[in-house]
Amino acid sequence: MNDAYHKLMDRIRDHGRLHAVEQLLDWDQETYMPSGGVKPRAELTALISGLAHERLVAEETGKLLSDAQAGDDDHIAQTNLRETRRAFERASRIPTALVKEIAHAGAMAKDAWAKARQDDKFQDFAPHLEKMVDLKKQVAEHVGYDTEPYDALMDEFEPGAKSAGIDTLFAALGERTAAFLRQIQASPTKPDFSILTRHYPRAQQEPLSRRMAECLHFDFGSGRIDVTVHPFCTSMGGASDVRITTRYMEDFLPAAMFGTMHETGHALYEQGLLAEHAFTPAGEAVSLGIHESQSRMWENLVGRSRAFWEYHYGDVQKMFPDSLGNVSLDEFYRAINTVSPSFIRVEADELTYNLHITLRFQIERAMIKGDIKVADVPEAWNAKMRELLGVVPPNNTEGCLQDIHWSMGIFGYFPTYALGNLYAAQFFDKASTDIPDLFERIAKNDHQPLLGWLRQNIHQHGQRFRAGELIERVTGKPLSIEPFMKHVTEKFSRVYGLKS
Amino acid sequence: MNDAYHKLMDRIRDHGRLHAVEQLLDWDQETYMPSGGVKPRAELTALISGLAHERLVAEETGKLLSDAQAGDDDHIAQTNLRETRRAFERASRIPTALVKEIAHAGAMAKDAWAKARQDDKFQDFAPHLEKMVDLKKQVAEHVGYDTEPYDALMDEFEPGAKSAGIDTLFAALGERTAAFLRQIQASPTKPDFSILTRHYPRAQQEPLSRRMAECLHFDFGSGRIDVTVHPFCTSMGGASDVRITTRYMEDFLPAAMFGTMHETGHALYEQGLLAEHAFTPAGEAVSLGIHESQSRMWENLVGRSRAFWEYHYGDVQKMFPDSLGNVSLDEFYRAINTVSPSFIRVEADELTYNLHITLRFQIERAMIKGDIKVADVPEAWNAKMRELLGVVPPNNTEGCLQDIHWSMGIFGYFPTYALGNLYAAQFFDKASTDIPDLFERIAKNDHQPLLGWLRQNIHQHGQRFRAGELIERVTGKPLSIEPFMKHVTEKFSRVYGLKS
Repeated sequence: MNDAYHKLMDRIRDHGRLHAVEQLLDWDQETYMPSGGVKPRAELTALISGLAHERLVAEETGKLLSDAQAGDDDHIAQTNLRETRRAFERASRIPTALVKEIAHAGAMAKDAWAKARQDDKFQDFAPHLEKMVDLKKQVAEHVGYDTEPYDALMDEFEPGAKSAGIDTLFAALGERTAAFLRQIQASPTKPDFSILTRHYPRAQQEPLSRRMAECLHFDFGSGRIDVTVHPFCTSMGGASDVRITTRYMEDFLPAAMFGTMHETGHALYEQGLLAEHAFTPAGEAVSLGIHESQSRMWENLVGRSRAFWEYHYGDVQKMFPDSLGNVSLDEFYRAINTVSPSFIRVEADELTYNLHITLRFQIERAMIKGDIKVADVPEAWNAKMRELLGVVPPNNTEGCLQDIHWSMGIFGYFPTYALGNLYAAQFFDKASTDIPDLFERIAKNDHQPLLGWLRQNIHQHGQRFRAGELIERVTGKPLSIEPFMKHVTEKFSRVYGLKS
Repeated sequence: MNDAYHKLMDRIRDHGRLHAVEQLLDWDQETYMPSGGVKPRAELTALISGLAHERLVAEETGKLLSDAQAGDDDHIAQTNLRETRRAFERASRIPTALVKEIAHAGAMAKDAWAKARQDDKFQDFAPHLEKMVDLKKQVAEHVGYDTEPYDALMDEFEPGAKSAGIDTLFAALGERTAAFLRQIQASPTKPDFSILTRHYPRAQQEPLSRRMAECLHFDFGSGRIDVTVHPFCTSMGGASDVRITTRYMEDFLPAAMFGTMHETGHALYEQGLLAEHAFTPAGEAVSLGIHESQSRMWENLVGRSRAFWEYHYGDVQKMFPDSLGNVSLDEFYRAINTVSPSFIRVEADELTYNLHITLRFQIERAMIKGDIKVADVPEAWNAKMRELLGVVPPNNTEGCLQDIHWSMGIFGYFPTYALGNLYAAQFFDKASTDIPDLFERIAKNDHQPLLGWLRQNIHQHGQRFRAGELIERVTGKPLSIEPFMKHVTEKFSRVYGLKS
């Protein structure tokens, strides 16, 4: 490494720190900021976002990038240079004024979205969404693309992903899912899902959430849990300050319980990055698809496994004696693994979840292409719901207003959720080969073997390997829908008494 | 106003916004940040602090300052130009690297201070304090001064204040206070202070704090209350996002109750600044002395008045039936107005409070001069306590480790607390002339007349008038110790049955 490299990394670390400050501004806005703070907060967010962008795209960054050198066997420096170059080239194409405008519009729109969602008034959110679609189209044009503008946006979250490829993957996944869903729906065996909609007092749910995070080794010395409308995980201090949020619904136990496990999965990735590389690509996550593979693995492959509940169910039953006192472990296990098309993505079962993503992918891709107008989104949403899931939400709050993403200008992000499910199944399949007693350990509340495996194979590498490279390197194969289909087919065939 | 003025204000607003981001970083560190976040937080704080400084001292700022013009009758623009020039000239003398070093050292030292205070280990904090004293001496040398370096530091918080003048003022105040204190201590009449050290459950104190803030018109839509080791008030969004903190002590009712009224006083000032001038001098407070006059007025002149408790005591008594059930209004009123030299500044009575400030002023002035070494601070502290207050703390936690200020590099700030007491009494004296039924209104829980008077005479003007000009303009006289001495003499003579 030469002097230019070190100077470049100083700049990049400051860029990463500014991004961390933005994360704090966002986290605070979602958790504790008083309602009156929206306007000045939008100004602060826009300012910091603009400064981060300027720092990245400055002429000096380009100059240092030309001069910087990494040793042939120094994969840390190589990773940092490769990813800094990628970020620089992308960001350089976007004017700082546009970046600031998006940050400002996002801070305002988030607030409008929350109100519109509460009041079920899509029309109050529509002008914000129109503005955001317009701004992101501009971004796509500045960044450039081969076939369609949506690709330019998706690239921010899942480097290298293309709409056409995602479309093919989702089509195959959708077809197999639909066929299996028909089998499940035809089965006379039905879990009693209503068990989970009994009364679960928040006073007990809070310690339960904490316990779930703790047992999966969330480090509270370097993190915390708060409450927000839309749960998320964020970091404003590398691996040392990782915060998750959850939401409590007294008539729906899974919201907070599995929501917390999900966000804990994200947090374990962040806390597993190496603090010494904080604020540089070598200390950052690979992509959102890989990030989501961590959250979905802990939420579903661990958290909805029978082994997990063999250990925990007795205690949870004691926490909610009125609702679970007469529910057996088997009934509970089947209830949390009910497959049933529903309106809300974050509450969807493991099988139909991907269909929610396909819907969002198709609608936002069409919005960015200009094939769907914002005003027509509610109708398009409901039509797709009927087509893919066979159900139609009674209102927009439970329909196209349910997710925060579009308000923040996040288009091209949703596909990473389904990719995460696929990556998760493929990684977990390999982990269960490498750790022969994996489920026995899970049944003993011992999550160190799996966490250690993830730390070793994924977390510690930061952005050393791109997603496609990582999955091949770890599992020996490129990404495929097969491990996911194998997992859901085996599991739900058992739950629904089907021949698998 | 010309084009240069508008461009200058854009820069200044961004500078103000960066400062607001710093306030959020600090607030978060004190309230919710996990312990592991200290190191990266120090980096973020240093970065933002450096960026704010750079933006202020940039050549471009100087150029715009030369070109900017304000209309003769445009006092807003005149205020903004005058104060921007002052800030620019001061900041330009301090190297950005030093500013960043202080911000970084402060973020680390705050953490060390909290631990040292908890463990009563001054020696663990001493290296941080030594570093901070050294850094602030460097600041003083860069800024420059006529007679002594401490003046250069005090000027940041109380523009124009000089050590010699403060010394004379505090000497006169100290002499009168000591004489009156002897009279009080000789009185056979003693309030029963122990009433306030009975058991006051936190579960009841929390709604009480909220109620106290509410009744004084703290706007929760533009603010919030949290819990910290050391209570403070901060704003990270002009008048629209003002946050106060408090601390609950179950064996000491005044801590949270009066602490909240105190911080509410600060918050009312911030919330009373004009949002349209946010992030510019016309939308900022005059000085810390004037700021403290607001907090002390609501805490002491209102909150410790008999009229206030005529309205509230019945309800508070009901909240704590075990501790206050058999305590009369008169006994309670006398208890909260007990004069008794003690160790902790923030818990000191109205009369002896200023002596705590004199002690800090003398010690920090000597540290900056180089007349006292950091290692000798505990001894100097205890000697001064004996000399001024006649009591010696049993440990450093209740002695020289009690305040957060020095850990943050805040030297020259303490005198503003005593100035605040003097300003408060002088303003309040005038307000009670302008509002003849002031105490009758207070006794009806109607605080609008006083708040309206403060909004009108002080808050709305931002930095239009400097402190000395403001007090003369509002009260017709320069600052004097007489209104304060008159207030304490009358009040405590009644409480202690002395001839006043």
